[in-house]
Amino acid sequence: MSILIPHPDFTAPRLAAAPEARFVPAPADGVLPEGFFATTNLPTYAKIDGRWRMPREPRMDAALVRDAEGALWAREGRRVRAGQLVAVGAAEDGSEGILVNVPGAGANGAGEFKFMSSEVSREKPIDYALMARILVDERERGGYPVWVAGPALVHSRARADMTWFVRNGFVGAFLAGNAVAVHDIEAAIFGTTLGMTGTGESTSGGHGLHMRAINRVRAAGSITAAVRQEIVTGGIMHALVEKDVPFVLCGSIRDDGPLPDVITDMVAAQDAMRAHTTRATMAVLVATALHAIATGNMLPAFVAESDTADDALPTLRELPTICVDSAEFVVSKLKDRGTHQAFGVVTNAQDFMHILRLYVERELAERGAGVLA
Amino acid sequence: MSILIPHPDFTAPRLAAAPEARFVPAPADGVLPEGFFATTNLPTYAKIDGRWRMPREPRMDAALVRDAEGALWAREGRRVRAGQLVAVGAAEDGSEGILVNVPGAGANGAGEFKFMSSEVSREKPIDYALMARILVDERERGGYPVWVAGPALVHSRARADMTWFVRNGFVGAFLAGNAVAVHDIEAAIFGTTLGMTGTGESTSGGHGLHMRAINRVRAAGSITAAVRQEIVTGGIMHALVEKDVPFVLCGSIRDDGPLPDVITDMVAAQDAMRAHTTRATMAVLVATALHAIATGNMLPAFVAESDTADDALPTLRELPTICVDSAEFVVSKLKDRGTHQAFGVVTNAQDFMHILRLYVERELAERGAGVLA
Amino acid sequence: MSILIPHPDFTAPRLAAAPEARFVPAPADGVLPEGFFATTNLPTYAKIDGRWRMPREPRMDAALVRDAEGALWAREGRRVRAGQLVAVGAAEDGSEGILVNVPGAGANGAGEFKFMSSEVSREKPIDYALMARILVDERERGGYPVWVAGPALVHSRARADMTWFVRNGFVGAFLAGNAVAVHDIEAAIFGTTLGMTGTGESTSGGHGLHMRAINRVRAAGSITAAVRQEIVTGGIMHALVEKDVPFVLCGSIRDDGPLPDVITDMVAAQDAMRAHTTRATMAVLVATALHAIATGNMLPAFVAESDTADDALPTLRELPTICVDSAEFVVSKLKDRGTHQAFGVVTNAQDFMHILRLYVERELAERGAGVLA
Amino acid sequence: MSILIPHPDFTAPRLAAAPEARFVPAPADGVLPEGFFATTNLPTYAKIDGRWRMPREPRMDAALVRDAEGALWAREGRRVRAGQLVAVGAAEDGSEGILVNVPGAGANGAGEFKFMSSEVSREKPIDYALMARILVDERERGGYPVWVAGPALVHSRARADMTWFVRNGFVGAFLAGNAVAVHDIEAAIFGTTLGMTGTGESTSGGHGLHMRAINRVRAAGSITAAVRQEIVTGGIMHALVEKDVPFVLCGSIRDDGPLPDVITDMVAAQDAMRAHTTRATMAVLVATALHAIATGNMLPAFVAESDTADDALPTLRELPTICVDSAEFVVSKLKDRGTHQAFGVVTNAQDFMHILRLYVERELAERGAGVLA
Repeated sequence: MSILIPHPDFTAPRLAAAPEARFVPAPADGVLPEGFFATTNLPTYAKIDGRWRMPREPRMDAALVRDAEGALWAREGRRVRAGQLVAVGAAEDGSEGILVNVPGAGANGAGEFKFMSSEVSREKPIDYALMARILVDERERGGYPVWVAGPALVHSRARADMTWFVRNGFVGAFLAGNAVAVHDIEAAIFGTTLGMTGTGESTSGGHGLHMRAINRVRAAGSITAAVRQEIVTGGIMHALVEKDVPFVLCGSIRDDGPLPDVITDMVAAQDAMRAHTTRATMAVLVATALHAIATGNMLPAFVAESDTADDALPTLRELPTICVDSAEFVVSKLKDRGTHQAFGVVTNAQDFMHILRLYVERELAERGAGVLA
Repeated sequence: MSILIPHPDFTAPRLAAAPEARFVPAPADGVLPEGFFATTNLPTYAKIDGRWRMPREPRMDAALVRDAEGALWAREGRRVRAGQLVAVGAAEDGSEGILVNVPGAGANGAGEFKFMSSEVSREKPIDYALMARILVDERERGGYPVWVAGPALVHSRARADMTWFVRNGFVGAFLAGNAVAVHDIEAAIFGTTLGMTGTGESTSGGHGLHMRAINRVRAAGSITAAVRQEIVTGGIMHALVEKDVPFVLCGSIRDDGPLPDVITDMVAAQDAMRAHTTRATMAVLVATALHAIATGNMLPAFVAESDTADDALPTLRELPTICVDSAEFVVSKLKDRGTHQAFGVVTNAQDFMHILRLYVERELAERGAGVLA
Repeated sequence: MSILIPHPDFTAPRLAAAPEARFVPAPADGVLPEGFFATTNLPTYAKIDGRWRMPREPRMDAALVRDAEGALWAREGRRVRAGQLVAVGAAEDGSEGILVNVPGAGANGAGEFKFMSSEVSREKPIDYALMARILVDERERGGYPVWVAGPALVHSRARADMTWFVRNGFVGAFLAGNAVAVHDIEAAIFGTTLGMTGTGESTSGGHGLHMRAINRVRAAGSITAAVRQEIVTGGIMHALVEKDVPFVLCGSIRDDGPLPDVITDMVAAQDAMRAHTTRATMAVLVATALHAIATGNMLPAFVAESDTADDALPTLRELPTICVDSAEFVVSKLKDRGTHQAFGVVTNAQDFMHILRLYVERELAERGAGVLA
Repeated sequence: MSILIPHPDFTAPRLAAAPEARFVPAPADGVLPEGFFATTNLPTYAKIDGRWRMPREPRMDAALVRDAEGALWAREGRRVRAGQLVAVGAAEDGSEGILVNVPGAGANGAGEFKFMSSEVSREKPIDYALMARILVDERERGGYPVWVAGPALVHSRARADMTWFVRNGFVGAFLAGNAVAVHDIEAAIFGTTLGMTGTGESTSGGHGLHMRAINRVRAAGSITAAVRQEIVTGGIMHALVEKDVPFVLCGSIRDDGPLPDVITDMVAAQDAMRAHTTRATMAVLVATALHAIATGNMLPAFVAESDTADDALPTLRELPTICVDSAEFVVSKLKDRGTHQAFGVVTNAQDFMHILRLYVERELAERGAGVLA
């Protein structure tokens, strides 16, 4: 069961020729010399008197200290006394006399111990400026950004921001489910979503309001008809109709209604989605595991600049894919289902939309482009 | 094992006197009449010919339909045919002939079926405008808002926003752990946090940078000394020192270093925190389970406007407590530990800080107040 | 913006007649007398010399101490010195001279400060013994438990346990999506799920195996045909076919294939589900937000022991609904969508199934009932 | 901003010499031939008439179809008609005439498209049998497994299982915080944790019970004294005292009390932990972010079979490190802080402990070893 970790081959020329580790006295109690070697939790060797030696009590975030008896210790900085000899150096590959055995580094010793190497984490910064530049670039070059949204986008105030992106030409196609449109239209007609007000309060009689919204659209015949008849006078679906942006509403087993525009057959719905995913030059997936993974399944990881059927192979570039969810899990799942190119943003959909809009507005202002309210 | 659900007492005067349920024909196939009664999943009774009857195939989000044979059904709107009789009414307490037996409603029938009644959910809207008004009010009245922050605040770009709040007088005291100050100072000196750049890249040699930052402050003697010696020239800790805002850095078992300012004894650290929690007029807890719950333990749920030792009892008001975390769990845990008054915001700390600052800037502009960059 | 908290009406007879608070000396430094009053973070009043007084430095988890000057303090036990006077009593309603103003307690003072009052939390114990008794009871009385499962059930080893529940008569109907059946059949044919082995390793060529599994069933014509032709010789779907347990596979927008048995039209799929939800006497929802909420939408919160169309109203009992997910969020969302009766279990589906089976086996052994392997 | 994806170098000998892609007719409508090539979302090339061509409408989980006009398409199996030509082959490196351009695969084309490659996921199976074998091996060889536990272990019934592991010799040292011991002792004295019963109910007066438990131990002077005086007669702490297993209780800023055994100074506490982490031959970290990361900071990633100070370098083996949490986040965070060797188990602590014990019992039975109740 035990997994043995072999020592490095110290007879290799590079290591045989390595210099001795260098030690410098600590300037004060609990203070290390500048340039001290910072330990890791991996097997570590310092070359002393021509021999590679391992420290006692190894641990990360410590220094290597040689005590009066010549013994080598990994020791926390606070425990080092003035004048004790502390190893210095930054290289972990032996070139300064200290070698760290990084797993998977291979014979060339190219590995390096690192923090923060997980792919998706709420602790990673979110580069809104970059995303804003990509979006504005896409608009400028006439790209076809496909947006895929879940209902959390509508429950919260992100609805206004999503509407703004539609109105201002950042949406090539909008893919969602029945619930997104239902909540959006409930908000347009009654000012609530699932009976909850914009400040999060439940309303009396609220649990039936989404059913009443659905019923009014069914009576009108379609969402477009409901917009034309001024039953629906604002919000995302209204903007999509007004701006003639194509949308696909795919049914699901948990739908109420559904709205007349919803494609209830999943094979037909995937066919309708494909018409957009094959044209996509960018994808923004917000707050939906189901639709994000569905879209990821259908989306190439790349954009071909010309028809792949041409005699000459087209220029290819990465298809920017942004996946926003409040849990790392959805992004990891999307990647585990093969959408490796997804760039994960772990945050609340409402906040994401608001800040992204802010950065896009700034980017537009810098480029001197106008904006609709 | 079975939990029986008794029927309501239909002999009670209110129910005995209730009118018959009203039925109206559906205007078209799959379209319900306006004002249709929207069902729940609870036991439901319609008064028909003087008798309270239950529908067949009960479910929520349906209508009550009387078929040609007089049988009563819960039926989805899409399955209703033109002319079928559909119950109308909004009241669930029998006053319009339809009664829903809501658990816990009591004899007075005051209960009501509702959606979205959970206390903490990422699906709830975040009222930044309200939080901004409270913060500006606090500053105007000379309140003492206590901020409690976890390291996620510094990993991401929220560091600049936190610094802004300190510089502009919104922070009465700042409570955090060693890691917050270490990351902040690593960012000030090296531009990284745990060796990760502001755009989320790992840097070569990065894993040792936080140790080097700690070592420089230990050499200087204290954070204040490091600021005075211009080792630390920006960021949160720098602003706290410059603006003379008190801070408490409480140690924890996972600390590297620690920094010289960290109170390593937990009893002493709680005593130091208490000096601020007893004065607090507001609390903002961002991205830290440990410190949020610690502060919640020490924080009254109320503010006394005058000394409680006075002969007259002081005026009391709720202590506004905002708890921000990317998971519902931390807020629920805080409430489960007794901090019932906490208002939970489920989002990414970076985004929270950025939008909150934006709203505070707007609020200040509306009130004609100035701002420091 | 400030929410004022009124003081209780101390002229009310119950409070006017309340006794004085009782104080007892602390037996040793840092040790409180038995029966000490444990504080909360709410406004608290002790009756001293006929007057209701509030302590200084209020906080929870402290004692009420009267110092030598007669001042009243909330003080942590560790700070109390031997001989200091400490309030004793358990009642928070004034009946022992100490009153806690619990929000929402109403005039009758029935409120009480409590920890751990959130509805859904991973910190709550899971009562497997109770769930096992309910399942065995259901089998004995010929109930109709509806199981609803997500793909995590099949990725992990819970597949064997689910199969066991089918074989041993605990499943009235099985509702799931395409993915559950695809993973199960991939496991039956190739021993992998999405190309991952039972110990979590990716296999070479693995990403296509689920497509090959789908293709074989499509070639056979149906899952039942694939079982009859011994293409599928084990697992959940095999057991359902062999034991003649009805199943409904509902399509979704993210399906590969789909398998021929999948109902791709969502309206037809809901109709197929309704045939089972209207008969359900119990529901077990494991590791699926989509199908759990879909089922919750269609499921009454109660079971009628006889036909609701009969002249006499039927006996009603609660419909036991167990919802298992690894995040509190899904259970809260289910409740927020109206399925209030759901009992949430926050754990990994694999572990849930394994322990539930173990407890059911024990319950069966106690009742002397036999088991199939 | 665009990241270009170069085409492979088709003039390389391996590709120049590659055979033509092979096509086979589909046997029936919607059914692919056995051995069909399953597509990915990456740039894909099929060699046809000596030329590498890309399919139209590329997507994953599809087949490559040549239509009557000779055009190449990525097409879902359900859309393929009987007799259409479908590419066959499993290799993605061109050796069967089809090439997938996997990012990072390098010139040698060793890359392969894979699902389920994330490191930590609740969807991955948990290998309890392996963990049980490691634990029993450790006991047999006289290893020193260090257990690190958070309070969720005690809230739920895992307390009995943890006690069992202590009693049966699987625990070399036990590292935890004040809360673990407080909850355990509250359970021993009052049968509750934070006033919640073993079945999850809040009890009247329950919020003070943990304070009363602390107070009794403070009165006794230490946990050991409380065990000797039969104030504490069962549970984890009782078993540790009875079996003479060393434990370290590290303080934290959120502690109530604390118990007299808690080391409140963090530097002293780390020193006390180090005495155990330097001897550890295995680590089990359950349900605690704080203590897990603290321990990870101090723990080498390897075990040295002899003293590292000896002249000969010791044999090294990986230090088995199991990290259990209900969220992927904690395990990822642990890895992001450098504990790369951690094996993550995403589940509920209660269920983990129960199943692990079950598997250890089985392993012991297989090896003919006895067990204490």
